[in-house]
Amino acid sequence: MIIDHIGVAVKSIEKGIKHWQNVFGYKQVTEIVINTRQKVKVAFMEKDNSLPIKLISPSDETSPLNKFLAKSEGLHHLCFKTDNLDDGLIELKGKGLRVLAPPQPGEAFDNENIAFVFGKMGLNIELIDTDKRAGRLDI
Amino acid sequence: MIIDHIGVAVKSIEKGIKHWQNVFGYKQVTEIVINTRQKVKVAFMEKDNSLPIKLISPSDETSPLNKFLAKSEGLHHLCFKTDNLDDGLIELKGKGLRVLAPPQPGEAFDNENIAFVFGKMGLNIELIDTDKRAGRLDI
Repeated sequence: MIIDHIGVAVKSIEKGIKHWQNVFGYKQVTEIVINTRQKVKVAFMEKDNSLPIKLISPSDETSPLNKFLAKSEGLHHLCFKTDNLDDGLIELKGKGLRVLAPPQPGEAFDNENIAFVFGKMGLNIELIDTDKRAGRLDI
Repeated sequence: MIIDHIGVAVKSIEKGIKHWQNVFGYKQVTEIVINTRQKVKVAFMEKDNSLPIKLISPSDETSPLNKFLAKSEGLHHLCFKTDNLDDGLIELKGKGLRVLAPPQPGEAFDNENIAFVFGKMGLNIELIDTDKRAGRLDI
């Protein structure tokens, strides 16, 4: 498994998009899509030869992300891409990691399955096995 | 500027190295080097086609990293590589970012200059313009 992108938590997805555009020269490559299970708004940002960034903000006041943001905006999770999500999950479970959310469709990934694992040492890990990113903009 | 690596804070650099080896299949590519100005132990971890990880842990009890770790281990900073560190810093200052530490030699980068910027929105940003990583292991 390799790192596909970094999840960055922001209070306002619109402000986050502008910040990454203006300061770091990233481009917004997807529309803002809501992942209903995680209750987050999602927008992918990309820049040539640099790691993609996934901005996330709470979609409503019941979003679990609000708890994280109560401390600070900032780096939230690492997303690893596996050849096969189920196999990747079995591998990490075999190494003693705890599954936070089993495979479930993620709207921002065009409803392909995504999963979340507690990576120990303070790491929130997302697992995917898809290249699909919903709402891709024609940039 | 593009993302060169992610800085991950751990309480014990040795435990962090083992964790990233065993769980995520990364290899330790440098010896443990101490950056005396930041008071951190540094070890670079790499994996083919994946983003490099820089593990950092406090080098002593006066390290500023202890304050961060009092909350949690985990994702600490993004390091951007620029074509020219001084120009990159001027660019980010021009965009309203505040310099936390001006260019200064970083032992883990073979004493080439590194700098730190507060990236707003909770982001700690390191700037480099070097590929040098001290203490590279012959792996």
